[in-house]
Amino acid sequence: MPLHIDLLTLFPRMLDGVLTESILGKGIAANLLSVKIHDLRGWCTDKHKTADDRPFGGGAGMVMKPDPVFAAMEQLQTPACRRIYLTPDGVPLTPAIAQDLAMQQHVIFLSGHYEGIDQRIREKVIDQEISIGDYVLTNGTLAAAVVIDALSRFIPGVLGEEKSLTHESHTGTLLDFPQYTRPAEFRGMSVPEVLLSGDHRKIEAWRHTQQLEKTRQVRPDLFEKHRHASRH
Amino acid sequence: MPLHIDLLTLFPRMLDGVLTESILGKGIAANLLSVKIHDLRGWCTDKHKTADDRPFGGGAGMVMKPDPVFAAMEQLQTPACRRIYLTPDGVPLTPAIAQDLAMQQHVIFLSGHYEGIDQRIREKVIDQEISIGDYVLTNGTLAAAVVIDALSRFIPGVLGEEKSLTHESHTGTLLDFPQYTRPAEFRGMSVPEVLLSGDHRKIEAWRHTQQLEKTRQVRPDLFEKHRHASRH
Repeated sequence: MPLHIDLLTLFPRMLDGVLTESILGKGIAANLLSVKIHDLRGWCTDKHKTADDRPFGGGAGMVMKPDPVFAAMEQLQTPACRRIYLTPDGVPLTPAIAQDLAMQQHVIFLSGHYEGIDQRIREKVIDQEISIGDYVLTNGTLAAAVVIDALSRFIPGVLGEEKSLTHESHTGTLLDFPQYTRPAEFRGMSVPEVLLSGDHRKIEAWRHTQQLEKTRQVRPDLFEKHRHASRH
Repeated sequence: MPLHIDLLTLFPRMLDGVLTESILGKGIAANLLSVKIHDLRGWCTDKHKTADDRPFGGGAGMVMKPDPVFAAMEQLQTPACRRIYLTPDGVPLTPAIAQDLAMQQHVIFLSGHYEGIDQRIREKVIDQEISIGDYVLTNGTLAAAVVIDALSRFIPGVLGEEKSLTHESHTGTLLDFPQYTRPAEFRGMSVPEVLLSGDHRKIEAWRHTQQLEKTRQVRPDLFEKHRHASRH
């Protein structure tokens, strides 16, 4: 059984293109995973289909109400499903988290108002809270798309055979080395000679040096982590 | 003049829904910003419209060729534009970066193969490299959408007056406090009494304590940063 994903959102048409185009879209078309979008307003029972209300205790922003989300989750959830809320308050997404999700049978994503949802939702019908980064979006639907795309890469068959999970940034702890392709000379800029040498040991050494240098410059935090890990 | 964004991608239909739905879509419809998607294959001049080729020096994955990107950039760029490449090797996106982009007149995003583009592109026709997080996507187009959504929040008028940039995760260095809305009692779960007290000093103190505790638990890295900043 391929992974089935349900996405609960107030913007059900937002991911139309994301789910049909690109490598992710091809994986869905080939039934390697399935994604179903649900309009949360379908579970809003009052006549104005209200999904949010003002926060208790005051403050700016509207807060997503508990009742429609509880009702939706109770209808969609299955015994072994993983219920995920996308929020900048969550645990940062990593390749390991994406890989873990790719191995599930059923995942439900809740895309909430980014300014907040009722805490009782988070306590009772959410199993895992994920953040895609330390910034704020207008809502969580794009964040859900990012997690779905990141996990799709770990589902066998989604990446064509010409692509690979190896030698990429963040599969290890270092950033990637510079890549070059034809033409070898382009507008006076040449490919580094070592890459044309055919000497694979030399090439690997050059690439590793480049990775270390780039990581040190752009991401001193990752560089320190790598140095620490290398010592053990 | 509102901000104009050009996006160069191999998957030009991928963001159809993202750019028409949701708060971002409303901002575009209201001419608060404009976004134009360009199919990079329009600049691929060989008869197979090839955009990538194998890497010099060997290794898995295909590398985006320099010629179509240089040609596209030369056609689209303007004297004051900012040319951005989305890559997991880049500088992590922050609200400050999003805000800076929102104040530009013209931004060009290049969505490349996530496994790599020719380094000469990065050296000559890219001004800024941005990462949306430490994970890998199937391509950079969703990452561009995330940056566009994050920056749109800083363009006056995009967020309705009921929304606000204040009191949100990552506008400060602490995660957000728990939010509650009606009903005050839901399935036996009550809203914390302090939030119903009307005592705004007490409410603020409670929320701050909650923020500290949540940040300490979920994001010890941010908590340390906050402690360090508070000392100065």
